[in-house]
Amino acid sequence: MQIITSKDNPNVKRIAKLTKRSESKKEGVIYLEGTRLCEEALLSGQTAKEVIVTENRLSWAKEFTPGIEPLVLSENVFSKISQTVNPQGVAIVINEPGIKGDIPFKGDSKDIYVVLENTQDPGNLGTIIRMADAFGLTAVIVSPTTCDPYNDKVIRATMGSIWHIPVVRKTMDECFSFFEQRGVETLAMHLKGSELSNSDLKLPCAYFIGNEGDGLTDETTSKCGGLVKIPMKGKAESLNAAVAASVIGYELSKLI
Amino acid sequence: MQIITSKDNPNVKRIAKLTKRSESKKEGVIYLEGTRLCEEALLSGQTAKEVIVTENRLSWAKEFTPGIEPLVLSENVFSKISQTVNPQGVAIVINEPGIKGDIPFKGDSKDIYVVLENTQDPGNLGTIIRMADAFGLTAVIVSPTTCDPYNDKVIRATMGSIWHIPVVRKTMDECFSFFEQRGVETLAMHLKGSELSNSDLKLPCAYFIGNEGDGLTDETTSKCGGLVKIPMKGKAESLNAAVAASVIGYELSKLI
Repeated sequence: MQIITSKDNPNVKRIAKLTKRSESKKEGVIYLEGTRLCEEALLSGQTAKEVIVTENRLSWAKEFTPGIEPLVLSENVFSKISQTVNPQGVAIVINEPGIKGDIPFKGDSKDIYVVLENTQDPGNLGTIIRMADAFGLTAVIVSPTTCDPYNDKVIRATMGSIWHIPVVRKTMDECFSFFEQRGVETLAMHLKGSELSNSDLKLPCAYFIGNEGDGLTDETTSKCGGLVKIPMKGKAESLNAAVAASVIGYELSKLI
Repeated sequence: MQIITSKDNPNVKRIAKLTKRSESKKEGVIYLEGTRLCEEALLSGQTAKEVIVTENRLSWAKEFTPGIEPLVLSENVFSKISQTVNPQGVAIVINEPGIKGDIPFKGDSKDIYVVLENTQDPGNLGTIIRMADAFGLTAVIVSPTTCDPYNDKVIRATMGSIWHIPVVRKTMDECFSFFEQRGVETLAMHLKGSELSNSDLKLPCAYFIGNEGDGLTDETTSKCGGLVKIPMKGKAESLNAAVAASVIGYELSKLI
């Protein structure tokens, strides 16, 4: 086993490049660092393409990524590529899971989808993915303009749920076409909608949430089968996008 | 009218000090900057103790803080004290509203309280305050260890709701004593609780949410009249604290 002590080593340079999301995205991979993030991914069935550890974390590599030859770096070199303040000496590179895949469909009136059109805040996106996993939704669908689900902040906010539930990127047209073919109800979350009550809801159902500031586009709203809003009794004009998505997700999950 | 052009001016030094939350807290005031934050506070009835503008924003001061002599700074000096990347030339100082006040009580079985024990994330706290306003809760109660509700990130996340709904800081003992005297049901949000269903719920009700990582303390949990959890159908072990608080707040708000 060789311990790499120079940051000019070609393998180190290659990994250092992948720590930038703009670069890892081009290659369709994700760089994860730290025990929590790495273990969440591995224990959820993701496979490491590359394993990067410091010498004193070799036992971690043996336990969590058996059969893969790790890249062993000196503490100093690891801290040079590290994206964290207190490096834990553990990182992996994995392939992006199925974001380019098909929208899954269970059938049997069990499907709930949350469709995000232009969600911008990584914390909101991560919280919505976590909620969608918790409430048993079929998938989270993100528009091409929605922020990158494999952004580090999103992954952290999902608390591992990013590896449990399909997150797929589709245009709104692709969504409507898919939902129409399968008889999936479409609901726009809209301040001009009717107040959400259980009687409105039936499965399968896809609900659309818009951008944090601007809401859904008129075009998407007009294509939805119905418009709903969450009843509000105070002075707030609207709810946080992740809260709104969660309240509807919760109501719909009662029907599964 | 005098335009201050030196950052060594004693008034500028005094305001510059208040831009640090650790300092403004000692004086029981809040420094707000930018048109959105300032206007939200003023239009919700908060009174400016001090108004700080650049020369070209004097008309703003005339419109939003009539009758108060503004401190007029040169662009250069304003940008020196500014806490934002693109200063808008508008700031105010206001008194902290009633965080030290009593817990309000409406009576007539209309009261819902969310009690936060050791919430640490400013985004979560702000989102919970916004939700509490939206769903017509009586107050948000924060423990002494919960993060500062007048932290800039919290205020931004509330989208103005911090000025609409009472946010009071109390110990857990003070809460239980208040709730007992007034016959308010107390519910602990707990992973060992029974699954939330409408039948569990009646008003007046206070529900307790714990720290993001550790949940509620055993002591607080044991003092609550009941334990509830939100039914989850996927692989996620828990929900984001603001999402959990919102789902219960939403269910309870149906009873108002």
